[in-house]
Amino acid sequence: MRRPTLDDIQSAYGRISPFINYTPVLTSRLLNDMFNCELYFKCENFQKVGAFKFRGATNAVLSLSPEERKMGVVTHSSGNHAAALALAARMNGVKANIVMPENAPAVKKNAVTGYGASITFCKPTQQAREETTRMIMEQTGATLVHPYDNFNVICGQGTAALELLEENNDLEVIIAPIGGGGLMSGTSISVKGINSHIQVIGAEPANADDAYRSFTAGKLFPSVNPVTVADGLLTSLSELTFSIIRSNVDAIYTVREESIIECMLLVWERMKIIIEPSSATVLAVVKENPGLIRGKKAGLIISGGNVDFRKLPF
Amino acid sequence: MRRPTLDDIQSAYGRISPFINYTPVLTSRLLNDMFNCELYFKCENFQKVGAFKFRGATNAVLSLSPEERKMGVVTHSSGNHAAALALAARMNGVKANIVMPENAPAVKKNAVTGYGASITFCKPTQQAREETTRMIMEQTGATLVHPYDNFNVICGQGTAALELLEENNDLEVIIAPIGGGGLMSGTSISVKGINSHIQVIGAEPANADDAYRSFTAGKLFPSVNPVTVADGLLTSLSELTFSIIRSNVDAIYTVREESIIECMLLVWERMKIIIEPSSATVLAVVKENPGLIRGKKAGLIISGGNVDFRKLPF
Repeated sequence: MRRPTLDDIQSAYGRISPFINYTPVLTSRLLNDMFNCELYFKCENFQKVGAFKFRGATNAVLSLSPEERKMGVVTHSSGNHAAALALAARMNGVKANIVMPENAPAVKKNAVTGYGASITFCKPTQQAREETTRMIMEQTGATLVHPYDNFNVICGQGTAALELLEENNDLEVIIAPIGGGGLMSGTSISVKGINSHIQVIGAEPANADDAYRSFTAGKLFPSVNPVTVADGLLTSLSELTFSIIRSNVDAIYTVREESIIECMLLVWERMKIIIEPSSATVLAVVKENPGLIRGKKAGLIISGGNVDFRKLPF
Repeated sequence: MRRPTLDDIQSAYGRISPFINYTPVLTSRLLNDMFNCELYFKCENFQKVGAFKFRGATNAVLSLSPEERKMGVVTHSSGNHAAALALAARMNGVKANIVMPENAPAVKKNAVTGYGASITFCKPTQQAREETTRMIMEQTGATLVHPYDNFNVICGQGTAALELLEENNDLEVIIAPIGGGGLMSGTSISVKGINSHIQVIGAEPANADDAYRSFTAGKLFPSVNPVTVADGLLTSLSELTFSIIRSNVDAIYTVREESIIECMLLVWERMKIIIEPSSATVLAVVKENPGLIRGKKAGLIISGGNVDFRKLPF
């Protein structure tokens, strides 16, 4: 698959900007004092559906040919990508089919059906997901919009960093979370394309460290039974996202579960905004590595704010 | 005590604006669709110390004479006003004494001592609070800064509505919560002073409805054993705040505990911001009275965002 360029991300931005929220960049004097640096939080928790995923999904839908539009889109996901694709499709009059494991929580099912998508349930295995998805593609002609292993999705995800650097052009470091690598890939292409001197850092839970291990070994390893509170970061890199990350990312830091929870609580308490555990990994990198950002201006990509308030980790 | 005027509030604003946060006004298309109106949330949860109380406390400290400054300030409170006065005093080099019941939660004690104030503990009765406060005033010459029964405090609290109307000059209704009535008093003077056609509405928990009962009867009743999740609204009106509210407020609506909790959760989930239960009362008024705001532009004063995340009501 072709690797996106900064030009591709800028084109995507022109395409999606009428549909997405321009999210704010927030700062906190208290957190700056605490960590001896200047932090700029790019708040994708305020994006539509509460996550950056809406950028990539919208770009994928808007990139369909007129023929493809008629046949709809399909994806397998039970998380933010499913809701994002459902809403992006509905806003553009395209039918969305979502493949979900039959044991997915009711709240996630409701989010997707609330946006008017059809759900097809399958057994909760990777094989069943893929087979069910293939079956829907064959039956309906729908286009697969993979959550991250997809050119248009990566281009869309890269637009958050575009906005961040447009507003703050003197950032020295940008940190984003890594799950499947879609956000990290898009972010790294935007940042390095705009200014190759900006350091690009990935944040990953130590309990789901496939990207760290792959990056260090120079060889793609899958995620093995990851168990982390950062439930948006369980997925493994693809060949495409791994190759982009190898080229563009300067370092990947893993963070402990306790740091993720502590940093999530810190942002809730001090900034009064809801961020999900996956988003707290970027602040956890700052916290666990006091020398890394000291005295610098750092942009942190806050990936989303979808949290089950009845199952909080604190 | 003299009643503040719009002029007094505007003077207070000139005084405090270098010290306070200019808080954002947020909107939510989803909530607008849900309630068939346009809601403008004035977000004092993003104010310093996480509550509007910092406005009034700062104005009180900045209104001290040079002599009074030397002798410090004192208040009895275990909530947001205590933290607000502690920080406002510290930012201006004034000593703050806080009288707190000995059974106050550790988190509230820590907030106050973290801002450098001295705490004097007393028995958890109204009488003990007042006696201890009087003793400190006699011993130190400190000026009492009452949480709401105070001219300068009311002027400061009224500045949130000034900012809101400066940004949105076509609001038709403004709703604020009522506890002791400081915020409601200041808000109502600002709003009616700027445009007497704007409807001013108070929101109160049905379980702490002293303002509603007093307003309806035209006679001041104290709060009797109030038990509500909106722990910032347990206090009773004073003669001063009652007289201001009688003159300026168009209506007071009481709301049920379930509505407060539901509206708090709705704002957390949909707007991704942390608001405290007291703040959710204003949205609960909209929810419980579907005809009241329909088709209108309404400003809602979100009083604060200080929540104990280990004791959530949902």
